Amino acid sequence: MTTETLHPSARAVIFDTDPGIDDAMALYLLARHPALQLRAITTVFGNASVAVTTRNAQALCGLYGLAPEAVKVAAGAPGPLQAHAAREFSTHVHGDDGLGGVAAFAEAARAPLHPLDPRPAYQLICDMVNAEPGVITLIAVGPMTNLALALQHDPGIASKVHQVIVMGGAFGTAGRGGNVTPVAEANMINDPEAADQVFTAPWPVVIVGLDVTQAVVMHEPYLAKLQGRGGAVGDFLWQATRHYQDFYHSVDGIHGIYAHDASAIAYAIEPSAFTLREGPVRVALDGIARGQTIQSLRAPGRHAEAWNNVSTQQACIQVNALRVLELFDQVFD
Amino acid sequence: MTTETLHPSARAVIFDTDPGIDDAMALYLLARHPALQLRAITTVFGNASVAVTTRNAQALCGLYGLAPEAVKVAAGAPGPLQAHAAREFSTHVHGDDGLGGVAAFAEAARAPLHPLDPRPAYQLICDMVNAEPGVITLIAVGPMTNLALALQHDPGIASKVHQVIVMGGAFGTAGRGGNVTPVAEANMINDPEAADQVFTAPWPVVIVGLDVTQAVVMHEPYLAKLQGRGGAVGDFLWQATRHYQDFYHSVDGIHGIYAHDASAIAYAIEPSAFTLREGPVRVALDGIARGQTIQSLRAPGRHAEAWNNVSTQQACIQVNALRVLELFDQVFD
Repeated sequence: MTTETLHPSARAVIFDTDPGIDDAMALYLLARHPALQLRAITTVFGNASVAVTTRNAQALCGLYGLAPEAVKVAAGAPGPLQAHAAREFSTHVHGDDGLGGVAAFAEAARAPLHPLDPRPAYQLICDMVNAEPGVITLIAVGPMTNLALALQHDPGIASKVHQVIVMGGAFGTAGRGGNVTPVAEANMINDPEAADQVFTAPWPVVIVGLDVTQAVVMHEPYLAKLQGRGGAVGDFLWQATRHYQDFYHSVDGIHGIYAHDASAIAYAIEPSAFTLREGPVRVALDGIARGQTIQSLRAPGRHAEAWNNVSTQQACIQVNALRVLELFDQVFD
Repeated sequence: MTTETLHPSARAVIFDTDPGIDDAMALYLLARHPALQLRAITTVFGNASVAVTTRNAQALCGLYGLAPEAVKVAAGAPGPLQAHAAREFSTHVHGDDGLGGVAAFAEAARAPLHPLDPRPAYQLICDMVNAEPGVITLIAVGPMTNLALALQHDPGIASKVHQVIVMGGAFGTAGRGGNVTPVAEANMINDPEAADQVFTAPWPVVIVGLDVTQAVVMHEPYLAKLQGRGGAVGDFLWQATRHYQDFYHSVDGIHGIYAHDASAIAYAIEPSAFTLREGPVRVALDGIARGQTIQSLRAPGRHAEAWNNVSTQQACIQVNALRVLELFDQVFD
């Protein structure tokens, strides 16, 4: 991406991520689409350890040709707010290296790496948001730990962020429950306390959960068509998704992958492709429902206690999946 | 109902109930329909105190002409298994007397009351189930406390009950969540521990929750047509539903009432009017999700931990509402 191709009203984005295969796809869409301007990548544990996801983020910057002076990278939280509640990393989904064990990527990771900002992720977020009030959109596609730490460090950022877009959660519409438990999605159950803080804070959050991301399936022929496009990127993503696809086939029987994280980017680019549902959202912290996102749909003032006096947020409940697939495909041309 | 009108294969039923306006409607359908043979009524707290629901059950027996030698009535639990977790009674829904404050009913309640069996409800349930293994269907439309106490008293009854049909819970299909919190239905949140014990026990349970009962709306013209039919019963139910209808209009804007409990009876009469979904069901006990019914839909052996090694149960997720309305209407002829 060159600055010449930037849309005049391109939205400035900090991308909080745990790459991760679908994170890598999302990052490419974000970095390439002229409606968005990627300013920084902050990393978090989740699909792998934060050491691995940080190295992956650095290597992806190299593979995608992102200049260090344009895109900062900062390492974030190694585990959830409540350290004792840590779960295992999702290496059965994303491979031991978090990116499906692709040789092309291993090579990129051996090249001189994109430099790391010395600040922890939450500090970089606070600094960038305070430097340009009203400008920054946070797109978070891993556990919400960095965002919660940023809010704890400086609650004032809530009124200075343009928008928060979260990939995570499951509201059970269209029969779509969680992907870890019947009600909990992975990013939520990896740090429910952080997610609850993010959703109840006084900033505008749009939640792109499984209700829509499981409707955006990149089938094998769609992925195969990426080969030979986008320089080395199309080949890399085709190879990286082989492992990921095997996982989904074993679990859900689909011959393809869910475009979880890319859907959050697509929302930032083209919100009209999504249908929203409004209401305060809490995250269950206790017992068998831990990690569940629960939105109250009653009229203001009639909510059950836990949903009273918290921010009203937006949950995506429907998506024009073909449009999301089109957006992603187009950035390879 | 005379014994002559009984269907040769009429199912023997114990009705566990907390009347309650829709309980009163359900009881009439149950007592009148030839496919069912009402053997006993066991009462429980819920819509009102157990003292009130028991007196209501006795008075309804008089109003409906149920003979003491045919139908036993036994008083059950005054509160949930965990007494400290007791909630307020739903008198804002069902009126202070639990039946909408109807004069005709107050009169019936002054007549000599249907006698009470000296046994507590759980004991009567155990005795009747053990006396005729494989015969008794339990239909429970209040908090699950009596059923849980019966299981605790004699776990062996689980293999001797023909079927358990429960009105309660909400699985969030068709956007239908709870009616007390965004996820919890009233009967469940009134005693979540009891409900969890009932759903995980080794007996076959069919759960008739809000997913279907909120699809069965008795609109005002339908209810008005009951007047002058069924002896004094049609007039009584028309009057009793005036208060109940006001409540639903204030909450959901409908000009009518949900036939919650009657839907459970309709399932017993005509299961083919319902679509079932199979999977183990747990009830959330902790935090903001307390009282939520959660069914795991994965293949056996692939459930998250809490859903492993518990019974597979059936949840109703769709209903032929017109057929349920027809069934109820027909017993007035």
